[in-house]
Amino acid sequence: MFPHRLAHVPVITIAKVRGRARGGGDELALACDMIFAARENAVFGQFESGTGALPGAGGIQHLTRRLGRTRAIEAITGADDFDADLAERYGWINRTLPDAELDGFVERLAKRIAGFPPAGVKAAKRAINDLTLPHPANVRSDSAMFLGLVALPESRERLDYLANRGLQTLGDVECDLGDAVAEYPGRGGGVGPVAESGRMPWLAAGRCTCSCVGVFGETSRAGARPAGDAPADPGVTVTAVGDGAGLQAGAARPRRSCHRGSNGRPSSVRVGR
Amino acid sequence: MFPHRLAHVPVITIAKVRGRARGGGDELALACDMIFAARENAVFGQFESGTGALPGAGGIQHLTRRLGRTRAIEAITGADDFDADLAERYGWINRTLPDAELDGFVERLAKRIAGFPPAGVKAAKRAINDLTLPHPANVRSDSAMFLGLVALPESRERLDYLANRGLQTLGDVECDLGDAVAEYPGRGGGVGPVAESGRMPWLAAGRCTCSCVGVFGETSRAGARPAGDAPADPGVTVTAVGDGAGLQAGAARPRRSCHRGSNGRPSSVRVGR
Amino acid sequence: MFPHRLAHVPVITIAKVRGRARGGGDELALACDMIFAARENAVFGQFESGTGALPGAGGIQHLTRRLGRTRAIEAITGADDFDADLAERYGWINRTLPDAELDGFVERLAKRIAGFPPAGVKAAKRAINDLTLPHPANVRSDSAMFLGLVALPESRERLDYLANRGLQTLGDVECDLGDAVAEYPGRGGGVGPVAESGRMPWLAAGRCTCSCVGVFGETSRAGARPAGDAPADPGVTVTAVGDGAGLQAGAARPRRSCHRGSNGRPSSVRVGR
Repeated sequence: MFPHRLAHVPVITIAKVRGRARGGGDELALACDMIFAARENAVFGQFESGTGALPGAGGIQHLTRRLGRTRAIEAITGADDFDADLAERYGWINRTLPDAELDGFVERLAKRIAGFPPAGVKAAKRAINDLTLPHPANVRSDSAMFLGLVALPESRERLDYLANRGLQTLGDVECDLGDAVAEYPGRGGGVGPVAESGRMPWLAAGRCTCSCVGVFGETSRAGARPAGDAPADPGVTVTAVGDGAGLQAGAARPRRSCHRGSNGRPSSVRVGR
Repeated sequence: MFPHRLAHVPVITIAKVRGRARGGGDELALACDMIFAARENAVFGQFESGTGALPGAGGIQHLTRRLGRTRAIEAITGADDFDADLAERYGWINRTLPDAELDGFVERLAKRIAGFPPAGVKAAKRAINDLTLPHPANVRSDSAMFLGLVALPESRERLDYLANRGLQTLGDVECDLGDAVAEYPGRGGGVGPVAESGRMPWLAAGRCTCSCVGVFGETSRAGARPAGDAPADPGVTVTAVGDGAGLQAGAARPRRSCHRGSNGRPSSVRVGR
Repeated sequence: MFPHRLAHVPVITIAKVRGRARGGGDELALACDMIFAARENAVFGQFESGTGALPGAGGIQHLTRRLGRTRAIEAITGADDFDADLAERYGWINRTLPDAELDGFVERLAKRIAGFPPAGVKAAKRAINDLTLPHPANVRSDSAMFLGLVALPESRERLDYLANRGLQTLGDVECDLGDAVAEYPGRGGGVGPVAESGRMPWLAAGRCTCSCVGVFGETSRAGARPAGDAPADPGVTVTAVGDGAGLQAGAARPRRSCHRGSNGRPSSVRVGR
């Protein structure tokens, strides 16, 4: 796909972002060699999950490698807009600059590199690409997944709903797509339900498993310390979205590695039901 | 192990951290799909190295992939507590929020994702997991290493010492475990000694090696610039903990690639003694 | 090479940086297990690209893994100086500390680790190294590339020019090497030219490709929103340095995956001229 080929071109590409870079627009920026954004108005987002799809032109590959697992899952499954400073903190872009300084900064950097001997610059980009760019098979598989998902009735329905409200035309939906994508009235077939630790038998089982590595029990209790600034909640509260069937199935298998506590004392823990 | 399976469940899990998340408790959070923490009171830590062990339930795998080599080595071998903001700067968690906003933020995010069509969300999590989660063999090897290390007499001794002082019961040891773990009176068999560059023959040899790539000499001298804000110390001072026997052995081998200076002039440098 | 072996030594090494750590000096720091820098005066840089070469002693391997693709390309092909705080934001170092606190912080951390049982600390470093250090083949290939590039006439010419102006001797060139390296009067054989999106037919073609995944068109238009804070520029402006011949060649191939819009409506897009 184009964004993937762009990352391989033997020139240095610098993306300068003002306003919104979402979906394929963000994926175009992500395929460039550097991304600098206007602090006051740049917005980044991959809204595809909100319509039943996923980023199919490199977004998953680039964001996962740069943001790491938890931030990439937030950005991609949350499908929300990120302002420029949060995007910098997450490693989504190189950095933000005041809008007034953006052009001068990028021009100076481009001219600077333009004056260097080409062999070293190209060899460096090649070496960095070799360590960071996805295998074409990953790109193709994301793309195929995207095309399959956008063809699903539930995705078509949401895309049509957004299109009727103004997707891809200048207006409120585009300017606040992060909100708009979550305002779909129909809720049939949503990921839901939402549950917190207490209401997750499989996670409750998990707690036991963790206490068998000797520390999680401590976490809740220390978190519950009455004095001091730590509130009465457990140290870690997990909210899950979905039914966890997978884990309960997985959890049905007893885990030998859990029958021994780190304190040496045996503890008989069954994971799952 | 449970934390490893948790990362694979076909639901989106969001960890909300207040108070202390250490050891297995932190590893439970690390296995979730996102981690948000209360800025005022959340504390993260993997204290295992302080007791002779290492994180055996995913901590090494997750932290290394998210924090990168030097920050992961600091977090894991330093075994200290990290406050929420430092944890965010290091990429340990997604981000911190004021305690008062934490519940609302996570609830909104969870409900938002709950309303999206499941196929895209689950496919995205699977694709991100494929790129970021460790191979089960790595998880098993960390776990086996953990179980072997906690069984060593020196580890048992330190764990017993901490247990007698209140490990895993609500109190000072738990609330300041980062300090407590370093207060062990016995020092037999510690990693030590500590040495600075000057006192490291093998590193001094290293300096020569570096000067043969033509730049390190500069670093010290420029660092020593009398005027300006750069102090008189060498640009880079290395502190080493341990005896460096490994390197001296390694350094005994002459390195052909070092017999040429970057300036093209031949330079005869011997590495090591 | 020495820096590569240093990363493998069975001791914990902590680099303390004051003043300038550039080229091989920075690569020595990067090979240590942790890097802490004086906020007021530490400077990091890999200036090699500015002289026609690339970092040949681990810089590419370490920076790419820590900074991610776009930040590593900026640091390495831009060949500029980074102050300590920016280096921390990019993940180049663990973190910065006030110069006055640096020695005490590193001494405390080193003594702390020195007191821990060695088995766990060494096993943790080994496990983290296994996940993060480059294969020796990568190190050798960077080194060979470096030696080949510095031998090129255009590199020799620039290095001689800098040497005559004071490279590796205490003075202005060393203290502001980031600027000095870009002040080479001759411009023969530079990477150039510099072009912005509008003047890149191959990127213009790219825009079409992106609009066929249904989103990039939006980006420009939303970016062009007259009201609001988003300026009239396209959301993403790409500046390219070099001639893009590679992409135009690549772009000549029609891409089947682009003949369908995400909105389900067929769109006939030809990539390239």
